[in-house]
Amino acid sequence: MARIVMKFGGTSVADIARIHNVARHVKREVDAGHEVAVVVSAMAGKTNELVQWAQEMPRVSGADSPFFDAREYDTIVASGEQVTSGLLAIALQSIGVDARSWQGWQIPIRTDNAHGAARILEIDGSEIVRRMGLGQVAVITGFQGLAPDNRIATLGRGGSDTSAVAVAAALKADRCDIYTDVDGVYTTDPRVEPKARRLSRISFEEMLELASQGAKVLQVRSVELAMVHKVRTFVRSSFEDPDAPGMGDFDNPPGTLICDEDEIVEQQVVTGIAYAKDEAQISLRRVADRPGVSAGIFGPLAEANINVDMIVQNVSEDGSKTDMTFTVPTGDLEKAVRVLEKVKDSVGFDVIQSEAGLVKVSVIGIGMRSHAGVAATAFKALAEKGINIRAITTSEIKISILIDGPYAELAVRTLHSVYGLDKQ
Amino acid sequence: MARIVMKFGGTSVADIARIHNVARHVKREVDAGHEVAVVVSAMAGKTNELVQWAQEMPRVSGADSPFFDAREYDTIVASGEQVTSGLLAIALQSIGVDARSWQGWQIPIRTDNAHGAARILEIDGSEIVRRMGLGQVAVITGFQGLAPDNRIATLGRGGSDTSAVAVAAALKADRCDIYTDVDGVYTTDPRVEPKARRLSRISFEEMLELASQGAKVLQVRSVELAMVHKVRTFVRSSFEDPDAPGMGDFDNPPGTLICDEDEIVEQQVVTGIAYAKDEAQISLRRVADRPGVSAGIFGPLAEANINVDMIVQNVSEDGSKTDMTFTVPTGDLEKAVRVLEKVKDSVGFDVIQSEAGLVKVSVIGIGMRSHAGVAATAFKALAEKGINIRAITTSEIKISILIDGPYAELAVRTLHSVYGLDKQ
Repeated sequence: MARIVMKFGGTSVADIARIHNVARHVKREVDAGHEVAVVVSAMAGKTNELVQWAQEMPRVSGADSPFFDAREYDTIVASGEQVTSGLLAIALQSIGVDARSWQGWQIPIRTDNAHGAARILEIDGSEIVRRMGLGQVAVITGFQGLAPDNRIATLGRGGSDTSAVAVAAALKADRCDIYTDVDGVYTTDPRVEPKARRLSRISFEEMLELASQGAKVLQVRSVELAMVHKVRTFVRSSFEDPDAPGMGDFDNPPGTLICDEDEIVEQQVVTGIAYAKDEAQISLRRVADRPGVSAGIFGPLAEANINVDMIVQNVSEDGSKTDMTFTVPTGDLEKAVRVLEKVKDSVGFDVIQSEAGLVKVSVIGIGMRSHAGVAATAFKALAEKGINIRAITTSEIKISILIDGPYAELAVRTLHSVYGLDKQ
Repeated sequence: MARIVMKFGGTSVADIARIHNVARHVKREVDAGHEVAVVVSAMAGKTNELVQWAQEMPRVSGADSPFFDAREYDTIVASGEQVTSGLLAIALQSIGVDARSWQGWQIPIRTDNAHGAARILEIDGSEIVRRMGLGQVAVITGFQGLAPDNRIATLGRGGSDTSAVAVAAALKADRCDIYTDVDGVYTTDPRVEPKARRLSRISFEEMLELASQGAKVLQVRSVELAMVHKVRTFVRSSFEDPDAPGMGDFDNPPGTLICDEDEIVEQQVVTGIAYAKDEAQISLRRVADRPGVSAGIFGPLAEANINVDMIVQNVSEDGSKTDMTFTVPTGDLEKAVRVLEKVKDSVGFDVIQSEAGLVKVSVIGIGMRSHAGVAATAFKALAEKGINIRAITTSEIKISILIDGPYAELAVRTLHSVYGLDKQ
């Protein structure tokens, strides 16, 4: 007997038939004797519809600004999960599983006051634990909680993964199963490299890098939270037959386990290759090399809500001028250049050069820490394919390489192969 | 300065443009210096969609029964008003009116535990009154409240009118304006009799009879509540231009005031003609005329949830056998006959005769109490048109007449004319 939190995203609960399918997944675990809490998203498309209404309202009203009250926005969009939670509870009851829905405000899942992008502060799981002990399944609305002002707060897009991990931590669950429309975490994007393999296990740190580097299986926040609270998290598919062989295997269900690195017996040097398209590069030439210059550049960009990613600064030759390169999303390039033109004189640099449509390819692996030459292998392999490297940044378990957009797929396949990821 | 509760139904908030229009109605009253609370329904069609999902779920799950948990049903359908409340709050803010949404559970509007058909027990209006004093408009979800189990309870279909009147009573509002898709209460259905006139005032008692007898302007429950708490209620149109002349006239806005009969200076003998189609008549022949026989008949029908309307029992000639006639909705006729066949021997009657597709026409007027001959006028007028009367029931302020379906419109027009209702 274990305690499991199961999370189902929007495509997994897209309609009545899919919600029935979710109920069958839940019943399988209940029948195996486990205590189960379920966290659900809104039915696919519903959140978008609600968000669109909220955004349209000020415009139709002829308002001067497209401002809308984030507290009202939260009230509106949170209704999506409310509907799913009730429908799944009915679906479970219909197949003989005791269940009840729980809204974030009923538990309560307490958040801070940052409506629209709230953070979970505390979850009182006592009543849910008590009822799970009596065999009742808790169906919990993801993505939302109760703010200190007694109003509904949402966690921001993709927040349901975060809700699920937070609930798992609060309930001291043995496992958090994230059911989604893919069947696990792959060594790279299978649409780019058909030889990509599903990983049976990946460490929290690696998953965090993968998610940050563009793999869209899980929200970064949820992985952070899982890492902090050491919540063993399975990524698995809701689209498989709930009663297919092995689906109820407690120790090794089909999917990828995200866990502490101690649980991964044989560490791979490299675990996966991620990529992020639509990067743009900005280079500032002959920047005055003095204290405070970085703050003078990145402070105004942060204030303009521009997410700066890779930052490369070389040591200047004579200690007076240097070049600085960094990346931003292509969509933010124009705004970023405008911001930088304004601070040109105060910061002190000669020229802004920029280029859009680039790609960042990342090699990720916890084994890198103890293996030399991992980066050199990447550079050599890319050079052999004639792929020019624009910039490089590294962390303890990651190498990120900025290249020209058209080479994205070739680079991913080359790196996937050179580290032996396409071999069993 | 007055305190006003404004209620807008589903067609009045059907889309973003209509919600903007509602905001303009609200702004008009705020600009006139009034304190305003608004009660909203779900956007037209939304509740039906949600109800359909809740009903489909057990069937798709292959459940043995179409049962669904009323608490989950409430969770699902209550989301409709939640969305409207947030959107209207944004719409109001967009045109410079301070506003916030209130969910039933936030106020709270306390109900009993009868999920799906709950009754309002208590409303704590203190915080709303405080904020109204500061100029903030409260946008309140209709149709729902918080049950003692800390879960959302809905009031049943059309419950938003009831919410509005209950909120008006709790806030000690000077007036409750029910905005709908018609511009008031008419002497009869204008689709049947184009000469029907809008009433400027009608008493609670008359409105109660009109609503019970098939006029669909207001829910019967809301009129009952308004009568008990003496809430002056205006029925008016949300489809008129919010800034048209006279719309902001506090004493005489365009519409019909439902009020205490003391406020109606010159009482009409007859105020209106209502009709209800799809009635079915059941006659039990030669029923044993002894104590308990009525209970033996109507008890089992009530248990089967069949709503019996007109009941006519004649005094038997010899004190041993009598005939009994009553009406049920045509949709329930088959079920009613099945129930009655089962109790035939225990109750003791000879034959069940039934006929579907009948119409009940009702003449309503508080002045009837002090005027003789009102019923005789109706019978004579119908006879002159060759309309056969099947059954008659009367109350202090109402005469109901059961006739054959095809004569419905002719009967309504005849009665409307004979009481002079088509004259100014």
